[in-house]
Amino acid sequence: MGGSFAAALTKRGLARVIGVTRRRSTADSALEMGILEEAGPDLDEIGAADIVVLATPVRTLLRQIPEVASRVRRGAILTDVGSTKSGILEALRAAKSPATVVAGHPMAGNERAGLDGCDDKVFENRPWVLIGDRLKATRLEQLVAGVGARPFWMKSPQDHDLKVARVSHIPYLLAYALMGTPLDAIRVCGNSFRDATRVAASDPDMVMDFLLTNQGPIRRSAKELQARLEKLLRLIDRGDAAGLRKSLVRARDLRGKL
Amino acid sequence: MGGSFAAALTKRGLARVIGVTRRRSTADSALEMGILEEAGPDLDEIGAADIVVLATPVRTLLRQIPEVASRVRRGAILTDVGSTKSGILEALRAAKSPATVVAGHPMAGNERAGLDGCDDKVFENRPWVLIGDRLKATRLEQLVAGVGARPFWMKSPQDHDLKVARVSHIPYLLAYALMGTPLDAIRVCGNSFRDATRVAASDPDMVMDFLLTNQGPIRRSAKELQARLEKLLRLIDRGDAAGLRKSLVRARDLRGKL
Repeated sequence: MGGSFAAALTKRGLARVIGVTRRRSTADSALEMGILEEAGPDLDEIGAADIVVLATPVRTLLRQIPEVASRVRRGAILTDVGSTKSGILEALRAAKSPATVVAGHPMAGNERAGLDGCDDKVFENRPWVLIGDRLKATRLEQLVAGVGARPFWMKSPQDHDLKVARVSHIPYLLAYALMGTPLDAIRVCGNSFRDATRVAASDPDMVMDFLLTNQGPIRRSAKELQARLEKLLRLIDRGDAAGLRKSLVRARDLRGKL
Repeated sequence: MGGSFAAALTKRGLARVIGVTRRRSTADSALEMGILEEAGPDLDEIGAADIVVLATPVRTLLRQIPEVASRVRRGAILTDVGSTKSGILEALRAAKSPATVVAGHPMAGNERAGLDGCDDKVFENRPWVLIGDRLKATRLEQLVAGVGARPFWMKSPQDHDLKVARVSHIPYLLAYALMGTPLDAIRVCGNSFRDATRVAASDPDMVMDFLLTNQGPIRRSAKELQARLEKLLRLIDRGDAAGLRKSLVRARDLRGKL
């Protein structure tokens, strides 16, 4: 995600992007790809930046925040692109950074992790969630809009984490549960199964990063989904054609608008 | 499905297709589309056919079988393209047709019902399930292969109905359950949600036809899926990274082969 953002900003000439990476080889690859201007492993570089974008996986980031947050200068914006927000915002606030903290989550991406998944068009027309003081985040909002995303302000990290559990983490879990279907049945599967399991092809470490940092909202969303599934199953068991049709028509009409 | 099969056979010159429809307007449309040679509402036409393909929705077919099955001549093949098989095979056997009964289910299709969804390429490389005496079904098997499908013989209608519940009816139900997600969350949905809910855009009557004629296998498959989902949720709750990773890697590897 960090690579894609760097590529999108550089390609459009929206910012001078400096990459700070854990491994020098990642910095070298990024430079070779031409997706940023300077890159290296020196963490002190971030002291000069107007906007610092933390782009490591959530669980790594939670460990790095204390070390990183203090180095960002007063007046700069400190943001991130992590896929869950409660833990990160808690850590950012605890770190008492002199910068303006605005948490972020571009609702975009693909199945590939790291620079391998780098795609400067991935943000186009996708929501980019932001949480923090909007009045102090104008420059960040301009960059987000500049790469084609739609800035989407949310009130709290809890609000964000419940929403993404409902529309993203649950579809992932259903895909994994479906992939446990007996193999003799999978042999005759059609498009409904293929579509529903597409995200199971994702990088496991990328997926674990959001599943293992969003337990509460995932459990709650799963309960809600199971209740709705049970309601449908009862309509089928009872042979309630009118009731079932009503649910199916509502779903079709709503899906048609997505 | 009947229209697509007629179109595929006619286009490839594999058979002289005669359509018998409930409504004259459907026959007229099919003739105009050039997907068959003759068409009309006279049920007695089927007495001359070598192969009779019943292509009404399952619940309609269950009502029509007694009237239709007796009209097919001895030595002919009587088949269908219904999406569930136990009820249909029971009705076909009870009707004591003089013909050779071979139940069928092309695992292909799209969201549109009737002639509106007619597509002569829809069978290409898709499994076409057949249940019955293979030795007496050579001509039917040739037509099925002729339109590009892969004849896939199954032992029993129960075997078929459980497999399609697992790989098709459950993904449909999950899509409908997902469409019940609160709207403020759906507003920020990404591709995982879009993919998992694609089939919710299907024609509700087409879907009701298989959901309401496959209650037992659907209930059983739903229980299996819920147990697999619960297992994943417990790994997440416990923060069991190693156990979760194992499930995710297995799913990714298997999905990659689909």
